[in-house]
Order: sequence, then C-alpha cells, then structure tokens
Amino acid sequence: MGMMRCAVLASGRGSDFQAVCDAVALGTCPVDLVRLITDNPSAQAIERAERAGVLVTVVDPASYPDRAAHDAALTMAMVDSGAELFVLAGYMRLLSPETVRTFAGRVINIHPALLPAFPGLRAPAQAIEHGVRVSGCTVHFVNEEMDNGPIILQSCVPVLDDDDPGTLAARILDEEHRILPEAIRLFAEGRLACDGRRVRILPPATG
Amino acid sequence: MGMMRCAVLASGRGSDFQAVCDAVALGTCPVDLVRLITDNPSAQAIERAERAGVLVTVVDPASYPDRAAHDAALTMAMVDSGAELFVLAGYMRLLSPETVRTFAGRVINIHPALLPAFPGLRAPAQAIEHGVRVSGCTVHFVNEEMDNGPIILQSCVPVLDDDDPGTLAARILDEEHRILPEAIRLFAEGRLACDGRRVRILPPATG
Repeated sequence: MGMMRCAVLASGRGSDFQAVCDAVALGTCPVDLVRLITDNPSAQAIERAERAGVLVTVVDPASYPDRAAHDAALTMAMVDSGAELFVLAGYMRLLSPETVRTFAGRVINIHPALLPAFPGLRAPAQAIEHGVRVSGCTVHFVNEEMDNGPIILQSCVPVLDDDDPGTLAARILDEEHRILPEAIRLFAEGRLACDGRRVRILPPATG
Repeated sequence: MGMMRCAVLASGRGSDFQAVCDAVALGTCPVDLVRLITDNPSAQAIERAERAGVLVTVVDPASYPDRAAHDAALTMAMVDSGAELFVLAGYMRLLSPETVRTFAGRVINIHPALLPAFPGLRAPAQAIEHGVRVSGCTVHFVNEEMDNGPIILQSCVPVLDDDDPGTLAARILDEEHRILPEAIRLFAEGRLACDGRRVRILPPATG
C-alpha cells in the first residue's frame, strides 16, 4: 500500500511548501507529494518544487476568460493530480464553492492567526493593529466560508512591543512550518475525526 | 507616598479577587486594596473580602428602580471608594458609558478568552463549540464597547480533545490568577503606555 497522495497549492514564496517538502524528505510527514499547483507563473514555490522533484501545474487566471473558467480549470488540475489531500499553503485565492464541494473534507489551509481572530488578508498586520499580546497560526479544514472550517491544529506566539507586521509574520511562520507537516501527518494517518466543528485527534493505530 | 488605591468589582465566586488579595499580601502586587464592590449580596467574594480585611460595598440592582439609578449608585460607590484603579474581576454587568467616561483609563477587565475571539458571556463554552485548539485570557482597559478596549496582557492555554467548558474554564482561570495581579502591578508602577489600541509596557523605573 502506497503513501497518501498529497498536492500543495501555493501562490508565492512557498516557505510552507518547503517545510512540507523537508518533512517528507525527513520521513516525518508520510505522504507522496504528487503536485504543486499555483496560480502564479512566477511563484518562487515553483523552483522549490523543481528542486524537490515535485511536478508543477500552473493555472494562471490570465489564461482564462473569467473567474468561472479559471475555477473549472483549477478543479480539473486538482482532479488530474490524483491527490487525496490538498493543502493550501499561501494560496491567495478563495476556492469556489463547487471546488470545495468536489473535494469535501480533503482540503486544508494554513492561516497566520489564531482563528476565529483575524481571518482574511494581512492577518499579522491586523493582529498588530488590534494590539493583541498573543497571536499564532491555524491549520483548518476548508469549507465554503473564508478561514472558517473546523480547526485541526493551532500554535501561539507572543506579540512583542516592538513588533511590526513583518517581525510578527516571521515568528508565526516558524510555527506554521512546524504544525503544517504535523497536520498533514495526522490526516495521512487517518487520525482526524470531525465532530461538528470540533476535530478530535485519534491515537495512533497499533500493531 | 502611599501605594495606589485599587478597588475590585466582582459578582460571584471571587477567585480572581482572591488571587489579587493573595498577591497583595505577598507583596507582588503593590496596591492598597480599598474596596470590593459587588452587585450581588450573596457573592462569595464578600466572604473573601472580609477575610482579607477589605471593605465591601454592595450595590444591588434590586434596590434601585431602574438601570440608570443603579448605574448612578455604582458610579457613586466607585467615587466613594477613593480608588485610582478599578478592576473588573468577574463583574457580570456592563458599566454604563457614563461610568466608563468618569473613570476613563482607570478601569481594567479580565476576560476568559483571547480577545478579539469570543467576547461576551460563556467564553470557554464558545471556544469549545468553535473547536479552537488554543484559548486563554485577556486583561484589557475597559472602553464603551464590551470586551473591546486596548489589551494589556494575554496568556494562552491548550484546549484538549476531552475538554468541556468547565475543564477549559478551570485551566484558563489558573492563567487569570497569574496575569491579573501582574497587570495591576504594571498599572500601579505607571508602566502601561497606550498608543492607539496598542499598550506598550515600559521598563521599570530605576533609582
């Protein structure tokens, strides 16, 4: 029996994607990384994928007449990847409701705040502007509302008096790199059980 | 020069109030606890105050014809206490906008969640129902919106798979007992500087 097939969607630098690649290489994240899917033909994540030997599919909105056509192409690329788990790791577009329904329970996202606080864009800047003392990151299942699905893992970091959005984002990113591969591992091991909005972590299988 | 005079407002069990009494007795919270003010004539906090030698004022809503009269009596009791700092420690009523304005910048509240997540009542139950993995508590300045003022200190605790609102509330309460006296100390030492919504903690005075 092979490992679970996993695809990552990313739009930019790809440091979360790199953390997943590294964990897979180290053997601490037992999945087969079958595809990087990006909407951005110049994403730095593409070079990282090539270095890690992961196939890349670019689904560039500029190549499609409208949002619906791009959404359909993205869904097609996800189906084509053969992945059983899809990880949004800095993917800067909302999936369409149809895409979410197509892969229900098989898409997870990482967000740089302790949801439900600070959903949406610029989460570290939002946290700084609100004046919180604690922030962090959240890995959650994706549902049809933005940054709203059942929470799998969270980790918190302090916000310091002299932080700006960049220094806070960097501190949060270190935790993202830790909990994202961990969440993928739990999913791949079949250890996440949804009970309404609550996600329970089952003990490892024995024997 | 005497210590800063501090009054605590509480409605119930008074365990946060007790933590403040204990820190004052230990010398780690340099204030003069001049009054416990409560809206509840059977609050257990009253016995704690008597044991600690703190004067008690009961401002029972049942003794007033309407909300405005009770608000006015509460403001009067706060003025009469002579306190320079007022600490809401499980005080279950909203202060009126007039009361907040009268004591602007001199009222702090402790809330059992990582604000801005889960304001209002039943915060630990809200956290459980939302399925977060991390919650905590917040000490903040009180403004005219509920659970909204500038944040002084926060502390986080894990939410465990088998938590119910009671077990989570107990874990949060341990952190409340730690950060509430600490926030009072910082206020009393003149070390809290508001910069819009952000509160900066100044270094201790030297010499």
